[in-house]
Amino acid sequence: MTRRLDEIVARFGGDLRGDESIAITGLASLETATAGQLSFLANSKYRGQLAATRAAAVILSPEMADQCPVAAIVTPHPYLYFAHLSQWLAEGPRPLTGIHPSAVVESDIPTSVSVGPQVWIGPDVVLGENVVIGAQCRIGAGVRIGADCQLYPGVTVYASCRIGCRAIIHSGVVIGADGFGFARAPDGKWVKIAQTGRVVIGDDVEIGANTTIDRGALEDTIIGDGVKLDNQIQVAHNVHIGANTAMAGCTGVAGSAIIGAGCTVGGAANILGHLSLADGVNVSSGTLVGKSITVPGTYTGTVPFMAHADWLKNFSRLRHLDALADRIRALEKRLTAIEPEK
Amino acid sequence: MTRRLDEIVARFGGDLRGDESIAITGLASLETATAGQLSFLANSKYRGQLAATRAAAVILSPEMADQCPVAAIVTPHPYLYFAHLSQWLAEGPRPLTGIHPSAVVESDIPTSVSVGPQVWIGPDVVLGENVVIGAQCRIGAGVRIGADCQLYPGVTVYASCRIGCRAIIHSGVVIGADGFGFARAPDGKWVKIAQTGRVVIGDDVEIGANTTIDRGALEDTIIGDGVKLDNQIQVAHNVHIGANTAMAGCTGVAGSAIIGAGCTVGGAANILGHLSLADGVNVSSGTLVGKSITVPGTYTGTVPFMAHADWLKNFSRLRHLDALADRIRALEKRLTAIEPEK
Amino acid sequence: MTRRLDEIVARFGGDLRGDESIAITGLASLETATAGQLSFLANSKYRGQLAATRAAAVILSPEMADQCPVAAIVTPHPYLYFAHLSQWLAEGPRPLTGIHPSAVVESDIPTSVSVGPQVWIGPDVVLGENVVIGAQCRIGAGVRIGADCQLYPGVTVYASCRIGCRAIIHSGVVIGADGFGFARAPDGKWVKIAQTGRVVIGDDVEIGANTTIDRGALEDTIIGDGVKLDNQIQVAHNVHIGANTAMAGCTGVAGSAIIGAGCTVGGAANILGHLSLADGVNVSSGTLVGKSITVPGTYTGTVPFMAHADWLKNFSRLRHLDALADRIRALEKRLTAIEPEK
Repeated sequence: MTRRLDEIVARFGGDLRGDESIAITGLASLETATAGQLSFLANSKYRGQLAATRAAAVILSPEMADQCPVAAIVTPHPYLYFAHLSQWLAEGPRPLTGIHPSAVVESDIPTSVSVGPQVWIGPDVVLGENVVIGAQCRIGAGVRIGADCQLYPGVTVYASCRIGCRAIIHSGVVIGADGFGFARAPDGKWVKIAQTGRVVIGDDVEIGANTTIDRGALEDTIIGDGVKLDNQIQVAHNVHIGANTAMAGCTGVAGSAIIGAGCTVGGAANILGHLSLADGVNVSSGTLVGKSITVPGTYTGTVPFMAHADWLKNFSRLRHLDALADRIRALEKRLTAIEPEK
Repeated sequence: MTRRLDEIVARFGGDLRGDESIAITGLASLETATAGQLSFLANSKYRGQLAATRAAAVILSPEMADQCPVAAIVTPHPYLYFAHLSQWLAEGPRPLTGIHPSAVVESDIPTSVSVGPQVWIGPDVVLGENVVIGAQCRIGAGVRIGADCQLYPGVTVYASCRIGCRAIIHSGVVIGADGFGFARAPDGKWVKIAQTGRVVIGDDVEIGANTTIDRGALEDTIIGDGVKLDNQIQVAHNVHIGANTAMAGCTGVAGSAIIGAGCTVGGAANILGHLSLADGVNVSSGTLVGKSITVPGTYTGTVPFMAHADWLKNFSRLRHLDALADRIRALEKRLTAIEPEK
Repeated sequence: MTRRLDEIVARFGGDLRGDESIAITGLASLETATAGQLSFLANSKYRGQLAATRAAAVILSPEMADQCPVAAIVTPHPYLYFAHLSQWLAEGPRPLTGIHPSAVVESDIPTSVSVGPQVWIGPDVVLGENVVIGAQCRIGAGVRIGADCQLYPGVTVYASCRIGCRAIIHSGVVIGADGFGFARAPDGKWVKIAQTGRVVIGDDVEIGANTTIDRGALEDTIIGDGVKLDNQIQVAHNVHIGANTAMAGCTGVAGSAIIGAGCTVGGAANILGHLSLADGVNVSSGTLVGKSITVPGTYTGTVPFMAHADWLKNFSRLRHLDALADRIRALEKRLTAIEPEK
């Protein structure tokens, strides 16, 4: 879709500097943009790329505006502007409404809904207006999905779960499978604890491919409004994730963890169970959070990698770190004993 | 489903103290239980919640019974009692037996089996009595699944794999995909090694959502009786997992690892290949097991997390730990050289 | 399928020693092989098993040939030979060509293609000759898949993605879901950045079960020729993976990472975003790669595990490693101050 700069500014605001009639055919980074493409400068680290850009125009902040060699859209939040714009330019035609003849739908659904090929929708399901259910999704009995949600092909929602409005749920996601709860019998066998809670998901949530969110054991697993989950995340039973928290791929959250609002969790981090994270906590990639965090801020716990031979030499010392500390204490005592008094 | 306390005790045993006619409408924790709900006290850590509980009754051990302010079911294993009871209270109607008209079934199956919408069952498949195959499962040629198994929607079982009786398999599970086996040619290209083993799963196994278990290369991958696997676990080719071992979410087991019986593996732990774990080993969450473990017990290898600035300061030292140890040894020598003889 | 040794050598080469008429019924390891089975000795570590093998014949290198107590196929690359042979012996009948009547196919496809039950293929899809699409795959609009690819049941390919020739893609794989890209608004809400790139996959790629590869944000995510990805790998948007790189299960690659050719990445390793790995880098299992690697070689960053009590004692020291180092420096100064001059 081609848009003129003045159309863009009319829709999203910002201060336009340069030829308002320039036609924008797409978006690109400063470095790769070519004629007709609109770019953005959101991080001053990339300021050096501005002078040489071949973009037709650049979205940037007032402080950068004077250095822009091409047309500019000046706004205090260039990346946010770019985000909104990217959605508009990417808009395609809505999928056809109605139910594909190969789908099996056991509930009444609004005529504005689009149900793709080979979908199964169980009984007592309530779908909001304009919901799009991709091919081969499986929606269990009693599920509710709010207006304007989009489920990509192959999403599974177990019985009774709730999804708010405007969710985007990617392929392979499983919502509402049983939490991992067992009692151990004296003979070592595990006896299943029925998982009778639900998953309750707020509005404006996005869930990445193959992520799994388990239903609660007795109460519900709760995902707040505006939460963004990347791919292959595991959320265990009874977890609460606060509003607008974002978690990168391959993270795991163990049972009954309570994560605050506005947190960020880096990729492959893991949060153990039965603990809580305050609002505004940032967990670095690869970090294992083993106890509660009550103070906002960034927390890290990863080890540096190194050439394998160096690693062998250095990390074998970890097995004896306590002994090393003891040797330091012993040295301090011995030295004190022979040092002249001051 | 509402049950009277005397009905519960008649079925599951235990010593009932209090009004046997109390009607139980559901289960809840001590802290959240309200009128009509049955709770349990399994961990003395929560003993403090007993006095204030509003539960109608509590399942607890003989030592706690005298402190219970409401009706009680007294049993030596309260959590186990609770587990059995939770299953009974959660029982719903069985799914309809028979084959949904949208399913494609190329094998003869018992009339007691329930095959959901859009399922594909290949040729030469043998299903036991009362098996439930959820919507859109895909069951490859020659698969055998024992009596009373339940497959949730969207499970994949590759050709020739075997599943015992009473398995519960959650959505997105893939059983029997090819193991990761290649020979590297002199030009750097990888040549696939055909994976011709199977996955053979015992009785009473539960497998969580999106977990994958690869078929063996030449022999079989074997999952013992009573094994419980949480979500998003990866089990590589030729692995053996012993009976009643339980593994939490996001764990990985590399090829040809042999894990004993009655082990527990915490979330996001990883077990490298071609090693073995004795029976009764407990691996802590997040731990990488890089060599065999021959003695039962609990094993751990994770690093503490800390505020990012503290982490920068402390963990950069890991790159020089060997040098630090050398400096300690040097200090010891220098000090010895000048210390007066005793 | 039974093959005589002379048939095998006629097809794959090698120097046959012993009775050329021996019929081979299958492959097995040196230790487990029984009459009629062909084994291999590829790693001199297993040389000790040669004398006692009951295999009908063994594939081995010239240096080992004289020690072989049974018939032998002598070749400089025994494991590679074994790999090629394993494929030949495992060859089954090709699936029926044509479109299963339960599939929904909205594109013209070659008559040599096999489309399984309940598959959905969207519009404008181009499939090469002899492609096999397993049950319930979902192929979005505009996708191209090269000749001789095999997709196992339940694979999802989002719109516009490209897959080269001879790919093997396992169940639950999701190719082309949206990358994880958001701009944070001043009120803490995340605004989605449309992900308009594709996933472009080269020839001869294998992708393991439940692996996810996200589409690029503006440009494409690129998987080179001959890349082998194990199960449950997450590849984020804009990643490039060079030719013939192999990654083991549960690894994660964050956005915009550039991984060279001929690399190996061990299981559960993670590679952070916006960095690059040279060709020929080997990352050890469980290692977090937090900065670029420019020199080929093996890199590691994991901690040893130990009995839990030992771990408590040793790893708590990590919180104070910087202080320990300071104490060592202080000791050095104090000691220097009192040491006699040399």
